[in-house]
Amino acid sequence: MKRRLLLVSNSTLHGGGYLQHCQQQIQDFFGKEVKRILFVPYALHDRDAYTKTARDKFKTLGLCLYHMDVEHTVTATVIFISDVLFFSLFPGYEVESVHETPDPVDAVRKAEGIFIGGGNTFRLLKALYDNKLVTEIKKRVLEDGIPYMGSSAGTNVSTISINTTNDMPIVYPPTFAAIGLVPFNINPHYLDPDPNSKHMGETREQRITQYHEELETPSVLGLREGSMLLVEGNKATLLGSTKARLFQRGKQTTEYEPGSDLSFLLTDAQ
Amino acid sequence: MKRRLLLVSNSTLHGGGYLQHCQQQIQDFFGKEVKRILFVPYALHDRDAYTKTARDKFKTLGLCLYHMDVEHTVTATVIFISDVLFFSLFPGYEVESVHETPDPVDAVRKAEGIFIGGGNTFRLLKALYDNKLVTEIKKRVLEDGIPYMGSSAGTNVSTISINTTNDMPIVYPPTFAAIGLVPFNINPHYLDPDPNSKHMGETREQRITQYHEELETPSVLGLREGSMLLVEGNKATLLGSTKARLFQRGKQTTEYEPGSDLSFLLTDAQ
Repeated sequence: MKRRLLLVSNSTLHGGGYLQHCQQQIQDFFGKEVKRILFVPYALHDRDAYTKTARDKFKTLGLCLYHMDVEHTVTATVIFISDVLFFSLFPGYEVESVHETPDPVDAVRKAEGIFIGGGNTFRLLKALYDNKLVTEIKKRVLEDGIPYMGSSAGTNVSTISINTTNDMPIVYPPTFAAIGLVPFNINPHYLDPDPNSKHMGETREQRITQYHEELETPSVLGLREGSMLLVEGNKATLLGSTKARLFQRGKQTTEYEPGSDLSFLLTDAQ
Repeated sequence: MKRRLLLVSNSTLHGGGYLQHCQQQIQDFFGKEVKRILFVPYALHDRDAYTKTARDKFKTLGLCLYHMDVEHTVTATVIFISDVLFFSLFPGYEVESVHETPDPVDAVRKAEGIFIGGGNTFRLLKALYDNKLVTEIKKRVLEDGIPYMGSSAGTNVSTISINTTNDMPIVYPPTFAAIGLVPFNINPHYLDPDPNSKHMGETREQRITQYHEELETPSVLGLREGSMLLVEGNKATLLGSTKARLFQRGKQTTEYEPGSDLSFLLTDAQ
């Protein structure tokens, strides 16, 4: 399977800018082959403003990343100089938004890579169905192997269903079944219980446990803010700065460190 | 309209027992006429255990409430003695659970009063539709005037829709339209943003604002834990110990103190 996915928990990490905490991974993921990324802004109401945010960010990618993030060792300096040489010729990624195109299905057919941004998952999934993009995106990613990046709601819709979103059900999608690029669920922005809280609403863990009380529900990977999952074919790796928490029906929950191999989640019987 | 509703934000308040913070209001609400309450436990997976919890609690109602809550003034003592005389003959409310009856629709038809408990709102609404109870409950409450109490998820389903629940969409109901005993939405367990939080998921206010970006969305009453809404015909009053926050599409949000008259929410053009 040609599948290549970068599934990010959150678009913005506390104290940082939009997609700043994962910009290195985004650049590694889309690499030097992809020049133009098809953006899907359906999860937010103001699609024009959202597209501008994404466009501005992707334009800067490829430029001057290392000197911010890596210590100035000799190796880092060599990498830095070689990248400066390369990226001085690299104009950043061009972003085309699907809502600006006359034919969204055709835009997906021609896309080199796709990025679905965060916002409200119900609104996003409904718009994907309304525009007949669910099947088309699945085909392009799983059959043609174009890279797919999702963030937050964009990560939710890439999984088997949106059953484990945190979002408010502000609109009614025709189904909770999603694009299905992986056979499990993700809970983005996964949040540990606050021991000092006096709030009595369910914790995130309690909500996921309720999901697993239902029959035949798949595994749920709780991606804390700062973490992301890289999927390449049948290999899945946890990236980022925070651990992830895995919930499996009838089993003990498990914690995974960044760098963990989570490829077992890609088999059907996880 | 005969409507009588007690819509509670939360079943348990921090530091207290099940329904303890609203037991006085429950007793005032069901009064001395209702002897038997039909309980709907669909929002939780273990319906038997849930019914036992509700049954045990309602059995104690009517007994020894005042001496815990009221200062020992002369008036309070007189009230206390007269209540002891009455409630020594009052066995508490009897709870019958709809899941224990052979015919749930018939059970609703015969009910003197209804209580729908909290849990997962999606699971609850789906089960209400699966058991054909939505129309029947609406008819009994709005036409026959039997008292309806909801808590948390049970409050969500009493409103026009479940669009403003906080719950995880663990199952897919046939619609988000709910029983519709009031023409607006409630957000139970309403939570103010935590200024010290580093979590970047949307705040409750942001989620409700996203709802109001959609067309023709009604008002949303954010009921903080500790608060509840009493509806009697066309009169609505905020009860409990905390303020409520009202969100109206295209208007400034407003705070309401306990005791506030919110009857304007019951008109169609709120």
